[in-house]
Amino acid sequence: MRNTLIATALLFAIALPALGQTPADPPKRKSAKEIIDAAPPSAWRTLDPANTLYMDLPAGRVVIELAPGFAPAHVANIKAMARGGFWDGLNIYRAQDNFVVQFGDPDGEDKAKAKPFPAGTKAKLPAEFTRTVAGARFDKLPDIDGWAPQVGFIDGMPAARDPKAGKAWMAHCYGVLGAGRNNAPDSSIGAELYVVVGQAPRALDHQLSVVGRVVRGMELLSVIPRGPEPMGFYENPEQRAPIVSIKLASDVPEAQRTPLQLLRTDSQAFIDATEARRNRVDDFYTVPAGHIDLCNVPLPVRAPPAPAQ
Amino acid sequence: MRNTLIATALLFAIALPALGQTPADPPKRKSAKEIIDAAPPSAWRTLDPANTLYMDLPAGRVVIELAPGFAPAHVANIKAMARGGFWDGLNIYRAQDNFVVQFGDPDGEDKAKAKPFPAGTKAKLPAEFTRTVAGARFDKLPDIDGWAPQVGFIDGMPAARDPKAGKAWMAHCYGVLGAGRNNAPDSSIGAELYVVVGQAPRALDHQLSVVGRVVRGMELLSVIPRGPEPMGFYENPEQRAPIVSIKLASDVPEAQRTPLQLLRTDSQAFIDATEARRNRVDDFYTVPAGHIDLCNVPLPVRAPPAPAQ
Repeated sequence: MRNTLIATALLFAIALPALGQTPADPPKRKSAKEIIDAAPPSAWRTLDPANTLYMDLPAGRVVIELAPGFAPAHVANIKAMARGGFWDGLNIYRAQDNFVVQFGDPDGEDKAKAKPFPAGTKAKLPAEFTRTVAGARFDKLPDIDGWAPQVGFIDGMPAARDPKAGKAWMAHCYGVLGAGRNNAPDSSIGAELYVVVGQAPRALDHQLSVVGRVVRGMELLSVIPRGPEPMGFYENPEQRAPIVSIKLASDVPEAQRTPLQLLRTDSQAFIDATEARRNRVDDFYTVPAGHIDLCNVPLPVRAPPAPAQ
Repeated sequence: MRNTLIATALLFAIALPALGQTPADPPKRKSAKEIIDAAPPSAWRTLDPANTLYMDLPAGRVVIELAPGFAPAHVANIKAMARGGFWDGLNIYRAQDNFVVQFGDPDGEDKAKAKPFPAGTKAKLPAEFTRTVAGARFDKLPDIDGWAPQVGFIDGMPAARDPKAGKAWMAHCYGVLGAGRNNAPDSSIGAELYVVVGQAPRALDHQLSVVGRVVRGMELLSVIPRGPEPMGFYENPEQRAPIVSIKLASDVPEAQRTPLQLLRTDSQAFIDATEARRNRVDDFYTVPAGHIDLCNVPLPVRAPPAPAQ
């Protein structure tokens, strides 16, 4: 009655058989969690260290999966910058509530103070706002979307697609990593990056080059103290949140890596878990929504299970 | 090129006349900010102190507008509890990333330790998940929505409506305040409350009693350190974030109040600003989205302008 337990009910009400349930009761629908827990090993893919960034903050590690299928030139540049230690000792210099945190070189626009780019960094890249649909498996959601003709997943990333235009792009969901730019579409090179920390700003879709997605550690970025309104840039440099380092996982000794697996978005477990969320009915939810928004679909992550003895 | 200025471009690219613009250039479209700045005084409404909660945290004040039109019994109970100092000295005992922060009495389920409810608190309330559409002005958005037949604003709150069922309800957008419950629909009384701090969990719509919305100070709630997964309840009571007090604004001496005005959702300025965001084209945005999601529509708030001298 005092409702401390809202949480238990709210998100993880697992359809346990009620006490006193008789054999005549209809079988309970499986919850998303039950479906995911029962997924076979083949439903999981292992994060590729050569395509993973570790953003180490004083509070812990943020793990980012890069999206070379969407922004190959930016991702290559980001790998070169990570390898050269570009972000090590730089900081998060902007945190705007319900929008983004942004990091890189706060003095990047000041030629006298800007940190030099490491060897191999390209100073100019093409805009990579969209990709062709050709050759990209699209795990389509049946749900309508106001921002795009179709939504779903490509390479495990939340994505939208316009079949008529033959184009696809990443959707600006919570945790998505994009390359900041100035007005010119080709003014980003991946040095200044932002992560979405609020309601999906889908109006940004296909207007910036999106380069990846945080797969673990969002709770370290989302609590960064907000800078002053309206933009969230810290007025005082001392308020900036330091970055210890950003490294490509494959450049980190294996013992210091954070191995992770992601549920494949074309697996039956993913499809079934999404359906269980779309039409959730259990002891707490009495009316199925009949819908799920692209950016409400959780993308399950786990540590690899211990090998069988 | 180094893109530190993404922010300027990203959200507040104001359509200033470019240097060298000739009289022959077409007039630039007004930005949402320009439209709001030019709104007449009649477009603004003043927050009613009798319908406003001040949640004072050590870091500052969170201002909440209550929604008696949606949940009259809960709002009346919350007012009684605020008047009786129920939350003073209690805490935020849950913070789940990309979902909610939740506050109230962490010992509420423990009869021996639960803080007594103040005089006038009702121990049982009806579920207030929906309201009738009758008598409620609905400032409808033209945009499609996956979760409801219609979306827009009622009493300045983000809302959804089902004309066939004759029902309306508040949408779980960022900043919305809801009453936690257990499995029974009528198990909430407004003592345990949650605020949405992530992607709108619209699957909760019309499944809980929603009681209001944070209109200022979200940046104080959104940075509360997250508790452990999956639910975000702090394991250690010392991690809980203290609440100094929650008071009805009308019970606070006038000199200590935080006067605020909100842009009326039926004003032409609001309609025009929303359209400017829906189809934004400026030096940064080159392709209009043609859409805006209910939970992406900002609800402008300001301090009342100083009276004319």
